Amino acid sequence: MQKISQGTIRFNRPPVIASHGCIVSQKEGDGPLGELFDRIEPDEYFGQDNWEKAESRFQAEAINICLKKAGVKGEDLDAAVGGDLLNQCTATSFAVKDLKAPFLGVYGACSTIAESIITAAALLDGGYGDNILASAGSHFCSAEKQFRTPLEYGSQRPPSAQWTVTGAGAVLLSFLGKVKISAATIGTIVDKGITDANHMGGAMAPAYANTLAAHLRAMGAMPTDYDAIFSGDLGVIGMDLTRELLARDGIILSDNYHDCGEMIFDREKQDVHAGGSGCGCAASVLCAYILPKMERGEWKRVLFCATGALLSPTTVLQGESIPCIAHAVELTAGN
Amino acid sequence: MQKISQGTIRFNRPPVIASHGCIVSQKEGDGPLGELFDRIEPDEYFGQDNWEKAESRFQAEAINICLKKAGVKGEDLDAAVGGDLLNQCTATSFAVKDLKAPFLGVYGACSTIAESIITAAALLDGGYGDNILASAGSHFCSAEKQFRTPLEYGSQRPPSAQWTVTGAGAVLLSFLGKVKISAATIGTIVDKGITDANHMGGAMAPAYANTLAAHLRAMGAMPTDYDAIFSGDLGVIGMDLTRELLARDGIILSDNYHDCGEMIFDREKQDVHAGGSGCGCAASVLCAYILPKMERGEWKRVLFCATGALLSPTTVLQGESIPCIAHAVELTAGN
Repeated sequence: MQKISQGTIRFNRPPVIASHGCIVSQKEGDGPLGELFDRIEPDEYFGQDNWEKAESRFQAEAINICLKKAGVKGEDLDAAVGGDLLNQCTATSFAVKDLKAPFLGVYGACSTIAESIITAAALLDGGYGDNILASAGSHFCSAEKQFRTPLEYGSQRPPSAQWTVTGAGAVLLSFLGKVKISAATIGTIVDKGITDANHMGGAMAPAYANTLAAHLRAMGAMPTDYDAIFSGDLGVIGMDLTRELLARDGIILSDNYHDCGEMIFDREKQDVHAGGSGCGCAASVLCAYILPKMERGEWKRVLFCATGALLSPTTVLQGESIPCIAHAVELTAGN
Repeated sequence: MQKISQGTIRFNRPPVIASHGCIVSQKEGDGPLGELFDRIEPDEYFGQDNWEKAESRFQAEAINICLKKAGVKGEDLDAAVGGDLLNQCTATSFAVKDLKAPFLGVYGACSTIAESIITAAALLDGGYGDNILASAGSHFCSAEKQFRTPLEYGSQRPPSAQWTVTGAGAVLLSFLGKVKISAATIGTIVDKGITDANHMGGAMAPAYANTLAAHLRAMGAMPTDYDAIFSGDLGVIGMDLTRELLARDGIILSDNYHDCGEMIFDREKQDVHAGGSGCGCAASVLCAYILPKMERGEWKRVLFCATGALLSPTTVLQGESIPCIAHAVELTAGN
């Protein structure tokens, strides 16, 4: 690999997506992308006795589907890289512990799947290994309990709130497959002083705009050079802000700009307010929608840029602002 | 870099430690290594109004010392990699946000400094960048509040408990310096079913033994080939278990085996029970004691292997066992 500019990497021996797997709960299954997910699990407890264990099971199942498709076992992995939103990233640790694979835990909030892919791709391109797994997941119930209020309170959610996706996605990076990781930008933290934990889209939009602009500049590319440009989970408010912020820099996002959080639910019918969110949102949409479209040859060049809000309930209660980050992964299909 | 065996990397273009910085609170300053730390901060609040902000300031100051020594600014960094124990790793996000550097958040509990160094080294060896920062920190008061009971309760600590270090360490990886990162082993999660959150040494020892044995096997090395072998923070109980576990595999640890958690406090006088712990323990001992000894030529080959317990207060209350991990970094000075 080589550095193109601060944060931006071009992969010289680009790793490819050898396989991917995803699973969501019934609510996501009832959404516009429902039929595209590998599995829809109707039981939000996934047979467990609490939501945290269920969250871990969702991620374990996404990994299981991914590895099964590729015929690869845990012990064949050179590493697993992944994370989630739970305190101490336990959903991932418990999901991967039976794989018997070297493990790197990462934390990038909802940008985690992109951070995992970048780390995995850097290891492979640099010469370490042939099979590295990247995964991320989230659960609506455990996230509400941890970050906001217990569900039993029945708190009113403001219109800017987003709905954490219950689901997970996993990709296997290797050197045989149709979709290459050709470049990436490791994001820089941007904090514009927003303190409202129910306004994630607004908090994250400047970080997204910053990474997107940096990546385009480094690659000498314009938005129209891509078949599609994705944000992770800005939701509709964050999308509008992003368009506005980028327009000030002369970067105009048109119809090829999409947001995983906006796409995964039907906002008219599913009462999710500003859209979906959570590590599992970008991860599952990547696996269910983006990668298959590229594998079928419908898209050749896609910029997938997941966003994360690096807050905690404690920092919010202490009146701190919300530092945000976005990591970009450039995907290329064909030659 | 190249893979030697599952998890073990040999760096072909080995990054070096260009600079390092560390800071601890008064208690660590009063310990046996006291005079070796770059800075001792007597105020455990570090001028802030809560422990979480103080923890973040400790890490920011370790980074500041490290970069100042090297004459490198945040905007010159190709990336910062780091983490901590706080929920959502906020101590690190807030510590690095003003650096304006691309950031990769990692979570490996008390093994975080080793995971950060491995990630940074892989990026550099692979061809991305010239200056990458790796950092980690912890704070006794915020850790007790989050993982155990509020300090105000005055809970009795069992003899197997360890004392979380208030402090942080940061290293700058580049290509000019005396100490090379010559190899590393990414650890695999080991969970032997221990459920007692006050028995971290016992929980982590099998993961340490597993990584150490894997690294030695891959490198074709024996413990006596190293001037020193370190564990992160197993404490005295974990050290004993480690010796016993490794002896069963025919690996005998002798006087060159040390534990950062055992070294940082005077157990006779400082009432820390089994020893020190926390991300800041291995990180600050690495920067204050290990690296300077190598820079002075007293040690040529050192194996630094930090350990982490991937539990959360929630998983413990839910009766789950404690998955543990250890990441090894092999350091070489001279030719």
